[in-house]
Amino acid sequence: MPENARDNLEAALGVIGRHDAAIKAMVTVTAEQARDAADLADQAAREGRWLGLLHGMTMAIKDNIQTAGVRTTSGSLHFKDVVPNQDAFVVQRLRAAGAVIVGKAAMHELAFGIRSYNPVSGQCRNPWDQSRIPGGSSGGSGAAVAAGMAQAALGSDTGGSVRLPAAMNGIAGLRPTHGRVPNHGSTPVSASYDTIGPMARRVGDLARILAVTAQGEPGAAPTAAPDLGNFLPTLNDGVAGLRLGLPLNHYFLNCDDDIAEAVMTAVRALEAQGARIVEVDVEGAETTHQWATIQIYADACAFHAERLDRHPELFSPAVLERMLVGRGFTAVDYANACRARETWQRGLARLYQDIDILISPTTPAPPPPIAEDKSLLEATRDASRNTYAGGFGANPGLSLPCGFGGDGLPIGLQLEAAWWREPMLLRAGMAYQAVTDWHLTEPPLP
Amino acid sequence: MPENARDNLEAALGVIGRHDAAIKAMVTVTAEQARDAADLADQAAREGRWLGLLHGMTMAIKDNIQTAGVRTTSGSLHFKDVVPNQDAFVVQRLRAAGAVIVGKAAMHELAFGIRSYNPVSGQCRNPWDQSRIPGGSSGGSGAAVAAGMAQAALGSDTGGSVRLPAAMNGIAGLRPTHGRVPNHGSTPVSASYDTIGPMARRVGDLARILAVTAQGEPGAAPTAAPDLGNFLPTLNDGVAGLRLGLPLNHYFLNCDDDIAEAVMTAVRALEAQGARIVEVDVEGAETTHQWATIQIYADACAFHAERLDRHPELFSPAVLERMLVGRGFTAVDYANACRARETWQRGLARLYQDIDILISPTTPAPPPPIAEDKSLLEATRDASRNTYAGGFGANPGLSLPCGFGGDGLPIGLQLEAAWWREPMLLRAGMAYQAVTDWHLTEPPLP
Repeated sequence: MPENARDNLEAALGVIGRHDAAIKAMVTVTAEQARDAADLADQAAREGRWLGLLHGMTMAIKDNIQTAGVRTTSGSLHFKDVVPNQDAFVVQRLRAAGAVIVGKAAMHELAFGIRSYNPVSGQCRNPWDQSRIPGGSSGGSGAAVAAGMAQAALGSDTGGSVRLPAAMNGIAGLRPTHGRVPNHGSTPVSASYDTIGPMARRVGDLARILAVTAQGEPGAAPTAAPDLGNFLPTLNDGVAGLRLGLPLNHYFLNCDDDIAEAVMTAVRALEAQGARIVEVDVEGAETTHQWATIQIYADACAFHAERLDRHPELFSPAVLERMLVGRGFTAVDYANACRARETWQRGLARLYQDIDILISPTTPAPPPPIAEDKSLLEATRDASRNTYAGGFGANPGLSLPCGFGGDGLPIGLQLEAAWWREPMLLRAGMAYQAVTDWHLTEPPLP
Repeated sequence: MPENARDNLEAALGVIGRHDAAIKAMVTVTAEQARDAADLADQAAREGRWLGLLHGMTMAIKDNIQTAGVRTTSGSLHFKDVVPNQDAFVVQRLRAAGAVIVGKAAMHELAFGIRSYNPVSGQCRNPWDQSRIPGGSSGGSGAAVAAGMAQAALGSDTGGSVRLPAAMNGIAGLRPTHGRVPNHGSTPVSASYDTIGPMARRVGDLARILAVTAQGEPGAAPTAAPDLGNFLPTLNDGVAGLRLGLPLNHYFLNCDDDIAEAVMTAVRALEAQGARIVEVDVEGAETTHQWATIQIYADACAFHAERLDRHPELFSPAVLERMLVGRGFTAVDYANACRARETWQRGLARLYQDIDILISPTTPAPPPPIAEDKSLLEATRDASRNTYAGGFGANPGLSLPCGFGGDGLPIGLQLEAAWWREPMLLRAGMAYQAVTDWHLTEPPLP
């Protein structure tokens, strides 16, 4: 934590001023609000008070999460002028815990793609190589943290939208268990997949943000979150005795060599600290993407039904094309996907009796070029192969920076676990970051 | 319980022999197996042993629940020659607890309708008026118990298929909370609605059968059943202080006068025992049927996909017509139904903070004539108006006989509650049956 919240904020605003015209990580910068919040934090500190777990932490909020009085565009022409009169649940919590919100982060239009292009703020760029995408859909959140525009950010993850931009920007990102963090006040893609999660360089920051934002929704019995408890004191307990499952199928298939090697090096680093490696066959993982696609796309079409009917021209062609795939599925397809999801979730529950953590590359290839000769649908499918599976399970997943490829682009390590075991994932992430410094490496901004 | 299981069984077999040619409640009678089971129970009793909670209880099993070595047709030409090599989970449990299984009960074809017609065993008839349907889809289970062919039966309830035939045959029937009783070994309509439940004259018998068959399925975390506990000793604790919600909308709309009056008389009988009446507006109840229809029909089409493609001629025209409606729905329809179901379930969770029991007529009209001028779809929709709502909620519901209409046909009282509160529902049912004898009245068989 900074000793002085205002100085800390000004440093972040300075980075935004110097670099965001190129990176385009921010849709809206709320400098004055942020200065007020930082000054309040400093005033409190002078009086010997501590505002909370996030006292003075600069944060960017993905632009599909509502902020009172501040435009919340969801990266869409449909919502470009929306100014909510209330903060989302999570934003209320962040402010109450002392966070200093620097602004709203860019995202892929409607959180429906990995390129982090949207027609409101344009193409967000990867700070490590500005000809590359920052991943998505929370690409602005990832790029802002990597570039130093904020210490942490909120993203939202439907099929990988926190973990992928974390991996592609060389920072850490947590997708909590679905249902752990209330979605109230965010623009949905799919209610049974969407999960708001923190992104930051340090796992310790993710943990504090999770502690602040977690809460089961009252009445949400089907996925009622058990009490998260005060897990922060356990974060330094290490990984000795934890069973790391190394998947023999699907997750390493056609994986970039640099990425596979970096992940295996990370596995050995955890093993050296006392974790045990267990080889596992994650049956059915290769089918999860097609099933999850049916539910996610149809859910998105259901939410945007009126907009699709009345103003299709306000969607970008690539998003419209991808979304309309959802209209082509039948109720029987959706019913089959529901059954497949139950089977997958029960299979994972069984798998996680034998292992504590499933380890894999977050994504099998480096961040693609912005000018890529693939449809958005194909690009998103290829990048999210390893993250959709966990989304289909509704399981928590943590992406950690674990090295750089020959091209100098960051590589992400994915750690996944059984429902509600974020505290254990974060503990493993802390252990990993204690012996590595990938997360402290900064991108070579001009 | 009978003093002598064999005599008790022979009495039931005698009724079957005299009356089932007319009623057609049974698809298959397993007299020899039953005699062996009854003799074993009597032998054990002579040795001072007690086989379990259901020692010597004669039972009929709906024919969509598998019985080892005994044909299990699901009332369908697709399955007419299926002889399972293993008992369903619930049947294993019944046998282990000492039940004497007299055979397999007739049902509507594939549990997909209320008329309890199927092309394997024909039209099951209502023992109270053989020109009428016995309700369905568990019509054979209801008719068998009402006629005295078995002391109790298992049915399965997707949108009312236990509660409706209980009401129409003048007996009691419980739909447990979805997920309470494992469906393993039964032919599905819709995995997220189907619920196996007991039917009997006496609520005490329902309670013992529930105690024997209940179990959360391992790994079934989304609906993992909490431990039912030993609730049997609480059954006689009465209803003093319980809050009975009386719905002002939907449930009494266009209800037959005799039925509404019988239900209100029952309400007063419970009030006289100390229950409190609370008028409630069950917002959205009238929309539940259309949403549940999308999910149930599409789920059924998904399960029967290959049969619908390759052998549509093996479905009855009425079932085929109704089922194919499910193929016409889109994934977006299904997605909207999922969201509507969550909203409804959360609304009910809120409602059940203010009341303990929601009280209504199980069905708003007397059992229809077999030769009725309505499509199966219309007839099923009209009869299940008050039962689909609870199925959509996945909530438990108990139907109790509460009188007879001017036509001499039985009337059903529906008591519903929050998830997992079957013990409280059964307690209320015990209190009601302690002061009434509708459940002891027998139909006038020739």
